Amino acid sequence: MSRIAYVNGRYLPHRTAAVHIEDRGYQFADGVYEVVPVQRGRLIDEDLHLDRLEFSLGELEIAPPMERRALQLVLREVLRRNGVARGILYLQVTRGVAPRDHKFPLVARPSLVITAKRLKPVPAKYLEEGVGVITLPDLRWKRCDIKTIALLPNVLGKQRAVEEGAYEAWQIDPEGMVTEGTSTNAWIVTKDRKIVTRPLGHEILPGVTRRALLDLLRTTDLTLEERSFALSEAMEAAEAFLTSSSVFLLPITRIDGEPIASGRPGDFAKRLRQLYVDHAERQAGSV
Amino acid sequence: MSRIAYVNGRYLPHRTAAVHIEDRGYQFADGVYEVVPVQRGRLIDEDLHLDRLEFSLGELEIAPPMERRALQLVLREVLRRNGVARGILYLQVTRGVAPRDHKFPLVARPSLVITAKRLKPVPAKYLEEGVGVITLPDLRWKRCDIKTIALLPNVLGKQRAVEEGAYEAWQIDPEGMVTEGTSTNAWIVTKDRKIVTRPLGHEILPGVTRRALLDLLRTTDLTLEERSFALSEAMEAAEAFLTSSSVFLLPITRIDGEPIASGRPGDFAKRLRQLYVDHAERQAGSV
Repeated sequence: MSRIAYVNGRYLPHRTAAVHIEDRGYQFADGVYEVVPVQRGRLIDEDLHLDRLEFSLGELEIAPPMERRALQLVLREVLRRNGVARGILYLQVTRGVAPRDHKFPLVARPSLVITAKRLKPVPAKYLEEGVGVITLPDLRWKRCDIKTIALLPNVLGKQRAVEEGAYEAWQIDPEGMVTEGTSTNAWIVTKDRKIVTRPLGHEILPGVTRRALLDLLRTTDLTLEERSFALSEAMEAAEAFLTSSSVFLLPITRIDGEPIASGRPGDFAKRLRQLYVDHAERQAGSV
Repeated sequence: MSRIAYVNGRYLPHRTAAVHIEDRGYQFADGVYEVVPVQRGRLIDEDLHLDRLEFSLGELEIAPPMERRALQLVLREVLRRNGVARGILYLQVTRGVAPRDHKFPLVARPSLVITAKRLKPVPAKYLEEGVGVITLPDLRWKRCDIKTIALLPNVLGKQRAVEEGAYEAWQIDPEGMVTEGTSTNAWIVTKDRKIVTRPLGHEILPGVTRRALLDLLRTTDLTLEERSFALSEAMEAAEAFLTSSSVFLLPITRIDGEPIASGRPGDFAKRLRQLYVDHAERQAGSV
């Protein structure tokens, strides 16, 4: 089955799917995106993703390219045409095509691109051994709560991580507090068994997996603290982990090459990953 | 004469010129650009622009899409095919097309897009009356010295300026100092006749017109101070002006709606604009 991309109303072979050179996404990073996990052919946490998409569009004053109901039909058609049972759906909305000029065009129709792809399961090694993160100063702009395609700082951070043999880079604000990874949210578990993650604000993306996990946590007897934490606190933590739509939850066992606690994935990370996996499975199985 | 765009080795009708949806410029803002003024069919300050392009590419570790000599031939061919005597040439280089993944692709050929367009002369009103700027907190990332296509904060700032009836938005750093406009560098002239502009650093773009004007200024008896200046100092200045490759130099006569000095363009702005115009004319006229 060859891949098909949806581009502005048309289903095109992925290989030749294109946008105009003056699409403002290409010249100005003037757009937003979502990555939605797919399990058993179903979109997971779809409403949360579409809510966030609408938030991002609203912040940039980009009109939704279509109504939510219509968009949901297109998303399903993209999944169907690509035969994706397990993977991710990617959608991107930009302000559209217009002669290059910084200010918003008076007339432009938002561009909508949607793709889907299969993903292999998370490597067992990541779950058994955990992953490593490095830390970097957070170079990003002051509105990281908007899920924009202006991802260059994230790209540079991720690349640095990979070059240093790590999975991810945690970005550190000027006060020494962890903001988040380049494509993941950051969590720790303190030695007195509190689960800590940074509260929402302009400094981090409101991760959907983060949000869903918080909601799930509130149904347990676990203790949660939504507060900033310093890198120094993370280095002394009992556990650390990351969340994202594509990997759900991965234990972090090394920060800047130093082992966290025993250097092995902890029980909280395992339990919370399972909590989310079960949640996704329930959605995937529901009619 | 219909417009022609250069896209990855091909000269295409501008209307249908396209790039792949997985060009990293579209999904990650993973690219850089230049805007080069054209006078009498000649590129102005071409070497400074190409030097800066190479700097930007180097900082992002994107390979130059071709050698400078070859690129220069293509730039001229784009001008020729578009019959642009007076206007701007736009060129953009991205890391290329690759399956979406934050880290750099192992194999990708940089994408190169070049367009040219005619520009009308700067409206006489701008020169006779000056333009207004508003001020905004500088929301941008911490490497504004790289001329990347991650221009979303600039877009939002420029749009705000236009909505408030101004030409440009000056961005203000946390210390209350002016960094620069969203697409222009910022200058003032103090009451004791010193010309002031912020020194280069990660906070501002190394503007080519800024650089050329500084070099020209050093051939005069005018006093120059490359130092940061506060918004409060700008409000009390004798003159203010902006520079960019597409407008050269425009006098600023209002900041946040308040007149600067007399509220009329000053002698320095006129003289310095002429200094740059003469410089551009010399280049355009040279064989």
